[in-house]
Amino acid sequence: MRMYDLIYTKKLGQALSAEQIAFWVKGAADGSVPDEQSSALLMAICWQGMSTEETLALTLNMRDSGDRVDLSAIPGIKVDKHSTGGVGDKTTLILGPIVAACGVPCAMFSGRGLGHTGGTVDKYAAIPGMKVELSIDEFKESLRSTGFANSAQTGDICPADRKLYALRDVTATVESIPLITASIMSKKLAGGSDALVLDVKCGGGAFMKTLEDSTALAQSMVNVGKAHGMKIKALITRMEEPLGWAIGNSLEVIESVEILKGLHGESDLAQMSFRLAAEMLVLGGAATDLPAAQTKVAEVIANGKAMEFFRTWTTFNGGDAKALDDFSRLPQPGQVIEIKADRDGWIHAMDSRALGILAMELGAGRQSKDDLLDLGVGIRVHKNVGQAVRAGELLYTVYAKTRTSVPIHRYLEAVHLEGLLTPKNPWLLGTIE
Amino acid sequence: MRMYDLIYTKKLGQALSAEQIAFWVKGAADGSVPDEQSSALLMAICWQGMSTEETLALTLNMRDSGDRVDLSAIPGIKVDKHSTGGVGDKTTLILGPIVAACGVPCAMFSGRGLGHTGGTVDKYAAIPGMKVELSIDEFKESLRSTGFANSAQTGDICPADRKLYALRDVTATVESIPLITASIMSKKLAGGSDALVLDVKCGGGAFMKTLEDSTALAQSMVNVGKAHGMKIKALITRMEEPLGWAIGNSLEVIESVEILKGLHGESDLAQMSFRLAAEMLVLGGAATDLPAAQTKVAEVIANGKAMEFFRTWTTFNGGDAKALDDFSRLPQPGQVIEIKADRDGWIHAMDSRALGILAMELGAGRQSKDDLLDLGVGIRVHKNVGQAVRAGELLYTVYAKTRTSVPIHRYLEAVHLEGLLTPKNPWLLGTIE
Repeated sequence: MRMYDLIYTKKLGQALSAEQIAFWVKGAADGSVPDEQSSALLMAICWQGMSTEETLALTLNMRDSGDRVDLSAIPGIKVDKHSTGGVGDKTTLILGPIVAACGVPCAMFSGRGLGHTGGTVDKYAAIPGMKVELSIDEFKESLRSTGFANSAQTGDICPADRKLYALRDVTATVESIPLITASIMSKKLAGGSDALVLDVKCGGGAFMKTLEDSTALAQSMVNVGKAHGMKIKALITRMEEPLGWAIGNSLEVIESVEILKGLHGESDLAQMSFRLAAEMLVLGGAATDLPAAQTKVAEVIANGKAMEFFRTWTTFNGGDAKALDDFSRLPQPGQVIEIKADRDGWIHAMDSRALGILAMELGAGRQSKDDLLDLGVGIRVHKNVGQAVRAGELLYTVYAKTRTSVPIHRYLEAVHLEGLLTPKNPWLLGTIE
Repeated sequence: MRMYDLIYTKKLGQALSAEQIAFWVKGAADGSVPDEQSSALLMAICWQGMSTEETLALTLNMRDSGDRVDLSAIPGIKVDKHSTGGVGDKTTLILGPIVAACGVPCAMFSGRGLGHTGGTVDKYAAIPGMKVELSIDEFKESLRSTGFANSAQTGDICPADRKLYALRDVTATVESIPLITASIMSKKLAGGSDALVLDVKCGGGAFMKTLEDSTALAQSMVNVGKAHGMKIKALITRMEEPLGWAIGNSLEVIESVEILKGLHGESDLAQMSFRLAAEMLVLGGAATDLPAAQTKVAEVIANGKAMEFFRTWTTFNGGDAKALDDFSRLPQPGQVIEIKADRDGWIHAMDSRALGILAMELGAGRQSKDDLLDLGVGIRVHKNVGQAVRAGELLYTVYAKTRTSVPIHRYLEAVHLEGLLTPKNPWLLGTIE
């Protein structure tokens, strides 16, 4: 088999066989296919696309390039959730305890943050003592003993994806529906869950800017999951402003705990977390339909079982559960700075990407992979799209290390004020199943 | 400037600036741009194409990556010809002497053969003593003293093109109109001529299979030449059968000499050579229009001046001019094998690519770059498309080293016989100027 023929075939818009894709992925990972040939094929895939069969073959070959987590010894339908990444997105911290409290085993591998988006694992790290890097055995033990496991990716998961992603990153070939699909789904399948709910973000603050692109990505991932016999459903959700009021690790733990305690139940963040949890309950077989699942979610919030689960699970994983009720035990910022509106207006849009970058610059996120985080810093967002603001009214509370590190004008520029009310779009834009 | 941005820009179908193209070509040549980024950009160019301005910038940057030949000290409009490559194409050996005999300085750099197509330089090499690798000074001296210079590419011409071509060759990115254009035109512009006639082949035996593709390539090269202020015209010519009766180096010298001596004047090869020569005379200012130029061509054939020029020029370049009249002085084959038709029919098509490969296998061409040639071997083709053949009638005379090296059935398969007459298409399919 010659790599040249694969590139030429895809350049002409024809399908690659499963054998050809296996040859490529293996060769890219072991170095026998040179990078210049892989990158030409990656660009040809950006150009000509891939069928579901091809995308599944790419997914499975990347999955099989490294370690896999076998959860089959643990009873029940293991459910997972994946989000394509947003600013202030702490839904995992909320829905994990809810789903587990409802009796469905919830097994998730989460990432660290990079650039303007935070990572779930970093948020847990704000809880003193919390262990966020579990071995595969520890991950299984957490799942078996508590019903919930959530950790940074462990072992050597999908090294072929890591290799190809590094190449895509320098060759402008990241943006391709089949390549994104295979990258995400290979890691999800290696994680060993039986069912998966996808949260595909759409909008200015997301990777996919248009409903068309978001829908295509969601459909591609659902197609691949189904072709592999997985239970899978995707929600397409709006990402036009930060999700919830908190950006930054300690702050996001606080907001998650408040929602688990029944506060802010009407917020987009709570509604989205509850809906994702309900979808997971349906896929996990704990509810016959969505309304029944939503009732179960409401119950474990109202009777405190979800929050109680979170305390127990935190303790199991070495974390200081008292910090979930006494927030002074969480990492604290050096300075608290209030930023007020400089004029009147209706909030037309909020630049969540810009706010994500501002939080990163405070130390809440990483500019490059090895940066150390300041877990106590972050941004509290006091206003949302669709609200009226008067000059002098509080827009943000910034939790910073030092006062001089806060460029006020960039915070103000992230809020787009208009003279007229802009109706807010619903957070749920569509579902694919 | 970041290479990533160039790839991303082209991936989106937007134009690269002249500065960006200069950055890339320089970086590809000196190694500061890694191959995986160049190959991703090459594939993005195959996908999205390039404007004339971009193609010209690519051409000029590749031209300027190495040595250039400065012919400005030699008086007159220096004319050049380029063919995209065919089987049995020896037009250069015929039109060079004609154009020079008409007083127009003719300066051409020619290639060596590779694969199924032969190289002009290899054909000259069949003339004993002939010097086919001239230094730039020797090239200029031949042009100044005789009015004709034709040699293998000399000096370090377009190293950036050589580097990028090697990359294209392994990444299936050879077939791209702007990339082919820049590769050809950079070398032609580095060669220093003022005017260029292009022979763009079209058909089964050519690189461009369809009239549409051939026309697009011709138009692209003419656009780039004109944008650079060059006098340029392209002919699109049919390549559905070998050009002339000879394939192989000694044989092609013999056929060329016969045409210069006024034989086979009605053949496609003679007509094409005369037409290309006439176009060169018009661009070179030796004739006001094509009919006047064609009259001049006919004169130097009829009065023997073109053939006499070829003898003089051969002597000037160290070759044995007597071999042009006594063909027994040319390299000879070991065996002569006649291949006869095994059935009746009308010749519908001849597979010139297959015949080129058969000639290569005899030793007339190179499978890989460093192969040594057998200059005496080759194929004499006795029949053309559109002719009737009877079983037992002579199709080929094969000049081989040994009898066993000739797979008769493959020669027979290269002739497609039909029960009905197939009218032959004209050799000239169109012109672009």
